[in-house]
Amino acid sequence: MSKPAIGFCGLGAMGFGMATHLVKQGYPVTGFDVWPPSLEKFAAAGGQTSTSLSESAREKQFYVVMVATAQQAQSAIFGNDGILKELPGGATLVLCSTVPSEYAKSVEKELKGVGRGDVFFIDAPVSGGAIRAADGTLSIMAGASKAAFEKGKWLLEELSAPSKLFIVEGGIGAGSNMKMVHQVLAAIQILTVSEAFGFAARLGLDAKEFREAVIKSEAWSWMFENRSVRTLTEDYFPGASAVTIILKDTGIITSMARLLDFPSHLCTIAEQVYLSSLDKGYGPNDDAGLVRLWISEPVSSIKCTLSGSENQEKLDLVLGLMTGIHLVSAAESISFAKHVGLPLPQLYELAAEAAGGSIMFREHGPKMIDILEGKGAEVKLDGYLEKVKKAIDEAQKIKCPLYLGGGALNMLITAEGALEGLLKPYILR
Amino acid sequence: MSKPAIGFCGLGAMGFGMATHLVKQGYPVTGFDVWPPSLEKFAAAGGQTSTSLSESAREKQFYVVMVATAQQAQSAIFGNDGILKELPGGATLVLCSTVPSEYAKSVEKELKGVGRGDVFFIDAPVSGGAIRAADGTLSIMAGASKAAFEKGKWLLEELSAPSKLFIVEGGIGAGSNMKMVHQVLAAIQILTVSEAFGFAARLGLDAKEFREAVIKSEAWSWMFENRSVRTLTEDYFPGASAVTIILKDTGIITSMARLLDFPSHLCTIAEQVYLSSLDKGYGPNDDAGLVRLWISEPVSSIKCTLSGSENQEKLDLVLGLMTGIHLVSAAESISFAKHVGLPLPQLYELAAEAAGGSIMFREHGPKMIDILEGKGAEVKLDGYLEKVKKAIDEAQKIKCPLYLGGGALNMLITAEGALEGLLKPYILR
Repeated sequence: MSKPAIGFCGLGAMGFGMATHLVKQGYPVTGFDVWPPSLEKFAAAGGQTSTSLSESAREKQFYVVMVATAQQAQSAIFGNDGILKELPGGATLVLCSTVPSEYAKSVEKELKGVGRGDVFFIDAPVSGGAIRAADGTLSIMAGASKAAFEKGKWLLEELSAPSKLFIVEGGIGAGSNMKMVHQVLAAIQILTVSEAFGFAARLGLDAKEFREAVIKSEAWSWMFENRSVRTLTEDYFPGASAVTIILKDTGIITSMARLLDFPSHLCTIAEQVYLSSLDKGYGPNDDAGLVRLWISEPVSSIKCTLSGSENQEKLDLVLGLMTGIHLVSAAESISFAKHVGLPLPQLYELAAEAAGGSIMFREHGPKMIDILEGKGAEVKLDGYLEKVKKAIDEAQKIKCPLYLGGGALNMLITAEGALEGLLKPYILR
Repeated sequence: MSKPAIGFCGLGAMGFGMATHLVKQGYPVTGFDVWPPSLEKFAAAGGQTSTSLSESAREKQFYVVMVATAQQAQSAIFGNDGILKELPGGATLVLCSTVPSEYAKSVEKELKGVGRGDVFFIDAPVSGGAIRAADGTLSIMAGASKAAFEKGKWLLEELSAPSKLFIVEGGIGAGSNMKMVHQVLAAIQILTVSEAFGFAARLGLDAKEFREAVIKSEAWSWMFENRSVRTLTEDYFPGASAVTIILKDTGIITSMARLLDFPSHLCTIAEQVYLSSLDKGYGPNDDAGLVRLWISEPVSSIKCTLSGSENQEKLDLVLGLMTGIHLVSAAESISFAKHVGLPLPQLYELAAEAAGGSIMFREHGPKMIDILEGKGAEVKLDGYLEKVKKAIDEAQKIKCPLYLGGGALNMLITAEGALEGLLKPYILR
C-alpha cells in the first residue's frame, strides 16, 4: 500500500528537517515556503514543491503547518490562496508551530465557522531542535479530539521519538499550553547561560573551566550544555537559534500570563532583557550571543589569574546563582502548568529530559508537583537563598547586573526557606 | 554670645550648600574636602578651610560629615589622620551621608570601642537637593540618643525647614532607615521617568505634551516633575544628579533588603538597569539621561503625527504604566518601613511632600499604613492592573522593554484586586 501524500508549509530550520525526514520515510511530501531557496533545497532533498499554498494542499489528506508565528499560520490556513481552499474533505491538519493556546483554539472555532468542521485539526507543537527534527525524534506535545488523533497519530509518531510523543489531555490548546510551560524553563534558562557566563567573565574566571564546572554540578541545565558550546566559540552569526525565536516564545508566555492573571516573574524579566538586546542588533544572532550584554570581548579570551582558592570561591558564586535561578524557573513553569490545568506529571516527564531540563527541575520538580497536588509534606529549601545572596553581594561590588539573579533572589526571600513558600506567590488564588 | 565653631567635611554639591548656609548664618565653619577646588570655592564663600581632616576637627564642639559613602565616612572619622584624632571631648558628630543603618550603628559601637563614647553621635541623612541644602531648608531624618539630640538638635534645625526635621524613634540607625525607605520611592520613580519617556517616544508622542499631561494627572511624581525638565533639554552632562548617586542609594536598599530578608522587587529591577547603564558610560551623567536606554535621539525631537484620539490613547497607556509603577513603589517603600520597624505615619508625612512623593503615594499610602497597622478595611484596587496590562500589551507589540512596568504588572497580578494583596508578598512573615 502506497504511503499517503502530505502537504507541508514552513521549510525553516525545523520544518525543513521534519519534511525531509518524511520524504526519507517514503512519503510523497509537497512543500511550500515563501523563501524560494528553501523550496530549491527541499526539491534537492527529494521533496515535491509548490509555489502556492492552496496548490500544496490539493488532494492531501494530511497537512503539516510549521511556520514561525500564529499570524503566519492564520494566513497560511485561512488566507485567500490558503491551505483550506484546496484541502480535501475530512483531511487532517497538524499545526506544529509554537503559538498561544488561545490561537490554537481560535483555529478550531474558525474551521467550524467557515464550514470546514470536517477537518481533523491537531494542535501539536514540537521541541528538540533541527537535528532531532531531521531524525524524526522530536518531542511533540499534542492536543486534539479523539477522532483527530485516530486519523493523525501515525504522522506524529513519524516525527517524534517513541517515548517523546505526549498526548496531552484537554483537546485543542492543551498541546500549545504544554509547550508554553516548557518554554518557561527555556526562556529563563537561555538567558541564564549568558548571565552566568557574563558574571563569570567579570569575575575573571576561565570560560572553558567554568563550562566544565557547571556541567558536572547541580547548576547543569540542558540549555547551558547546549548553548555554551557556541558561547565559547562566538558562534552567533547566525548560530543555531536566534534571540528572536526565544523572544517570540517568551512573548507567548507573558501575554498568556497577562490574559490569565498569572505572575510570570522571571519570564517577564527575561523578556525585557531580550527586548533590550534587539536595540543592540542581537535579534538575528544566536541567543548564546546575549553574553555580549555583559562583556564585549569573547569570554574565551579571559585569562584567569586567580589563585586556586579564589578561583573555586568565584566559581561557587556563579554556580550558586545558577542553581537559584533554575530552582525558581522550575517553580514558575510547574505553577503555570497548574494554573492552566495541565497534568503536572506529564510536564515533568516531558521537560526533565528535554531542552528545559535542569538538575534543579529534576530534583525539585516532583516535590513541587506533590505540593501543588495537595500531597506534599513540607520541604525545606536549605542553602539556595544564601548562595544567591552571596552571588549578588559580589555582583553588586563589581557592578555586574544580574537580572534573573535579582528576580530569583526575591522569590527565594519570599519562600522563607520552604518549597511551599516558593510556590505561594505563583498560586495565591 | 558668639556662635559655636563647626567642622565640616565633604564639600560636594550638597555639603557645599549646607556648609555655606551655616557660614551665612554666622557660624565659623572649617571645611575639608579632598578636592582642592572645592576648598577654594568654600574659602571664597567665606568659609575657613583645612587641608587635613584632623585639623578641621580641632576645637570643634560640632562636626558635620557629608561625604558620599560609608567607606569615605569610615576613613574620615576613624582614619589615621581622621576627625576623631582632634575632635574634643563631648563633641557632637553629625553624620549626614546616606549610609546603611547597619553602618551608622557600627559607628556608634566603634566610637565606644576606641574609647570615644564621650562623642554625641547623630545619624542624620538629608534629602532635598542642592538648592534646599544652600537655603537651609532640607528634610532631615535623624536618629540618636536623647542626650545627643539635646546637644545637637539646634544644628539640625539650622539645616532643615521648620516642618522638615524628622526625629525618628529608635536611636542610631533609625534616621538612615527612614532615608533608605524614602529612597525606595526615589530609586523606582527616577527610573520610571526614563522608562515612561522612552515608551512615550517609541509610541510617537510629543515629549512636551507628554510632560504636561503627566504633571496634571495621577501619574505625577515629584521625581517626574523635577527630572523631566532635564529630559526635555538633554541636560545630562553632568546635569544635577548622577546615575551613580541613585545607584549608590539603591545599593543600600537592596543590600539591606538582602541582610534583612525583605523582597525589594522593583528596587532590585531598577538596580540592574542602573548597573547596565554604567556599561554605556551613563554613570556620571544625570539620571534623566537614562532615557537613552530607550531612544538615542533627543525625546524633544519626536514629531508627533498621531491623530487626536490616537494621541490620547497612547498617552493613557503611558500614564497607566506610571500609576501602576508608582502604586507598587508606595507598597514597597511602606512595607520595607514596616519590616525595619519604622513609624509609618512619619514616613508618610515625610515622603508625601519630599522627593519620593507621588499622587499614588499620597492617595494610597494612608490606606496601606492602616492595613499594615492592622486597622485597615479591605480596599479594592480597581483599574490599575488593567491599565498596566494594556501598556505592556502595546510595549510588547512595539518591542519596547518596560523593566519596572513588567515588575509592577506581576505585583499587581499577585494583588488580586486588593490593596492588602499588593502588600502581602512584601510582608509574608
